[in-house]
Amino acid sequence: MPPKCLQLENINPNFIAMEYAVRGPLVIRAGEIEKELERGMKKPFDQVIRANTGDCQATGQQPLTFLRQLLTLTLEPRLLDSPDYPEDVKKRARLILDSCYGHSVGSYTESAGLEVVRRQVAAFIERRDECIPSDWQNIYLTAGATPGIKSILSLINCQLGGKTPGVMVPIPQYPLYSATIAEYAMVKVDYYLEEETGWSLNRKELQRSYCECQQHCNPRALVVINPGNPTGQVLTRDNIVEIIKFAYDNQLLLLADEVYQDNVYDKNSKFYSFKKVMHEMGEPYRSQELVSFLSTSKGYLGECGLRGGYMEVINMCPQVKAMLTKSITAGLCSNTIGQVAVSALVNPPQPGEPSYERYVCEKNATLASLKERAELVHKTLSGFEGYKVNPVQGAMYIFPQIEIPPKAIAAAKDKNMAPDAFYAFELLESSGICIVPGSGFGQKPGTYHFRSTILPQTDKLKLMMEKFRVFHDEFIKKYK
Amino acid sequence: MPPKCLQLENINPNFIAMEYAVRGPLVIRAGEIEKELERGMKKPFDQVIRANTGDCQATGQQPLTFLRQLLTLTLEPRLLDSPDYPEDVKKRARLILDSCYGHSVGSYTESAGLEVVRRQVAAFIERRDECIPSDWQNIYLTAGATPGIKSILSLINCQLGGKTPGVMVPIPQYPLYSATIAEYAMVKVDYYLEEETGWSLNRKELQRSYCECQQHCNPRALVVINPGNPTGQVLTRDNIVEIIKFAYDNQLLLLADEVYQDNVYDKNSKFYSFKKVMHEMGEPYRSQELVSFLSTSKGYLGECGLRGGYMEVINMCPQVKAMLTKSITAGLCSNTIGQVAVSALVNPPQPGEPSYERYVCEKNATLASLKERAELVHKTLSGFEGYKVNPVQGAMYIFPQIEIPPKAIAAAKDKNMAPDAFYAFELLESSGICIVPGSGFGQKPGTYHFRSTILPQTDKLKLMMEKFRVFHDEFIKKYK
Repeated sequence: MPPKCLQLENINPNFIAMEYAVRGPLVIRAGEIEKELERGMKKPFDQVIRANTGDCQATGQQPLTFLRQLLTLTLEPRLLDSPDYPEDVKKRARLILDSCYGHSVGSYTESAGLEVVRRQVAAFIERRDECIPSDWQNIYLTAGATPGIKSILSLINCQLGGKTPGVMVPIPQYPLYSATIAEYAMVKVDYYLEEETGWSLNRKELQRSYCECQQHCNPRALVVINPGNPTGQVLTRDNIVEIIKFAYDNQLLLLADEVYQDNVYDKNSKFYSFKKVMHEMGEPYRSQELVSFLSTSKGYLGECGLRGGYMEVINMCPQVKAMLTKSITAGLCSNTIGQVAVSALVNPPQPGEPSYERYVCEKNATLASLKERAELVHKTLSGFEGYKVNPVQGAMYIFPQIEIPPKAIAAAKDKNMAPDAFYAFELLESSGICIVPGSGFGQKPGTYHFRSTILPQTDKLKLMMEKFRVFHDEFIKKYK
Repeated sequence: MPPKCLQLENINPNFIAMEYAVRGPLVIRAGEIEKELERGMKKPFDQVIRANTGDCQATGQQPLTFLRQLLTLTLEPRLLDSPDYPEDVKKRARLILDSCYGHSVGSYTESAGLEVVRRQVAAFIERRDECIPSDWQNIYLTAGATPGIKSILSLINCQLGGKTPGVMVPIPQYPLYSATIAEYAMVKVDYYLEEETGWSLNRKELQRSYCECQQHCNPRALVVINPGNPTGQVLTRDNIVEIIKFAYDNQLLLLADEVYQDNVYDKNSKFYSFKKVMHEMGEPYRSQELVSFLSTSKGYLGECGLRGGYMEVINMCPQVKAMLTKSITAGLCSNTIGQVAVSALVNPPQPGEPSYERYVCEKNATLASLKERAELVHKTLSGFEGYKVNPVQGAMYIFPQIEIPPKAIAAAKDKNMAPDAFYAFELLESSGICIVPGSGFGQKPGTYHFRSTILPQTDKLKLMMEKFRVFHDEFIKKYK
């Protein structure tokens, strides 16, 4: 037998380098434990609680009736005659079907998505940003936010003067960024969020990071995640102004990951879109190049599986935009059901329409419950010995700093594990709770964190918090 | 104002190099013409006939009732209690929902897709290949065939001994391959299909192409499209044996694009999967590394917009497969509705089940109509002056060779156009028919072709053929 064509030594080395902690070894082990429980293996718990991914419906959130009805009507147009569906949903379904080739969601769409949905997105952005214009031709529908982010990072992947392009990302960060930057063999340029001031972002740190990286790469873009993942903070308007100035002064493309824009719980926090702030700052900042991302996976929809999303590409040079457009044509188009889900997000029932009351009631209940859970998790974990916890102002995560006793650090070293991964594995094996160690997101050297979602439904979350407390007390006792 | 961050000079040069003809300038012009017609502009025709993409439902094909019902029930589980849906569809929907986290298609799935659907795919492949085993863990669900093809090409993208990786592709080819190879800065290694013998593939030509490319690249993979796109041929078993031997002898990964496996019309042709032939050849060929692709966009489903598909990865070294799996985790998962569509494709109603008769009736009607249209297009175009046309044995396309008179070639040159693009533009402007010039797929130098789908419904297709004839006669008269 000759050796295999493909071996670790002769495949894309970037595949070997990349990591994606949110679906890493801990999550794989959680899946194994679930199968062990199914097979009747005895454990100190009877179920795995998955607090590792921002997957709302996996943990019991109910889908919006309006959204699912709209999807159903576009998939089964014969139901357009059924009295079981409200007229406002039917009207929206007809509008979408009329814009599909052959009146079917089974047809390909334009590569950037259905024009009618792109126009609805633009109108939604104009309402959100209080009349700042949005051009529908700047909107690209994408399968969740991920493919949009990847296509923009790929677009700027250009060696200049022998230097590799660099992308500035916050630390801690959502590991899609580190994974994609590794996949494209670009340079990840870390800037640290300041934990002491609620994960705020300051210009001095941006400047330090920018200056240090220039020796080994050519920084091209600045990524900001607001509200923060995994950190849960909501940036202040002043902070956003500083960031925009910094990007402008250093000719960096701004990537605003704003997928949690509807997830703000703290009464003193407010979401400001980068676009709006930039516009209000006037020239020259108003002309700054910016790409903003939103998806149907978060917010109050939580439709992760449907893979709907969009990006708005602002102030990009037309010739460059044409290349971006061309590059996505080979992928044909994003899935139509995701596109319809985006339509449901940006064009909801209005006062006076038959679906309105139910829609508002469901939406508000979901958001109120998320707020309640955000507070519950923060309150509980704040009481744990050795924890420092910032409040969950927004998004769906908490990212506590934990003190790990030296004996536990030594035990982790024996197992060749990062101390926070050791903590997370012990938690999983003894309580069934699955979280993601801070090392998967990045953290200041010598500090330890983890990310937990706030997503299990309230009853289950209370149970989870109680189990967590028991584990933590025992862990501290064991290793103190 | 400082210059833009992104300009043509400092973006990814691969974005500038890549082309994707199926959605190129001709198709953009077709869209403009549609808008001109809407605005009331006078034209010698009243509608554009889009024969440029293999988009079945855009041209009037009806979706399968069974498939759409299954999608509806997974999106609106309350309908599981409705008497309007057959029990066999309900049973399938429940099985899928039970395997989703939180019993919802709104949750993320494993990155490779829902286990239950992957198992159904493996069972389907075993039935197709008459009991040759298929391991469900070799199945990756993908959003159409495209992302699977791209991830495998990316996997092998590795510089070795200072040489760029090469990918052998048929000429003519489906431009996804050329576009992706350009995007990844790999080398496209052309081997020519032999038009004179019905677009067959011979070892001598593979060998020539392989030898010539070795000076400037390191060939790693061989792409075969069967049934052929854009060429419509179905490979004989002998031909497949030859190809497998060649790939084995030269340590090339085989990529079998088998998305048209259900589209075989010619009574003397039969689809053989590469996997089956390889298996029947015994060792050492049975251990050849192979990836095979299928999608829900073609066949008798034609659900292009839903973006469902899978790839089966055979004989890949486990460590390499682990890297492939890791690389797709950052993209989270393919859309669940596409996954459910794959389930409908591979796990259809069985004899005795309530949906069976309707399902078979719809499926057969679609396939019979495609066959009829394949013959109609072939018969008509064969009669055109200066056309050489191979029969449409399978797939959804015809790829005639056309003689372009010297005067027309000169006229094209004046407009700085390829002669076949000139022909296609003249056709579009005078008749509204949109086809794709052969230069978008590749062709032997000095020959001219175009690709037309066979997809407009029969009445419209007859009209199209008639308009085409009128155009061609006038074109020949004008430029003779």
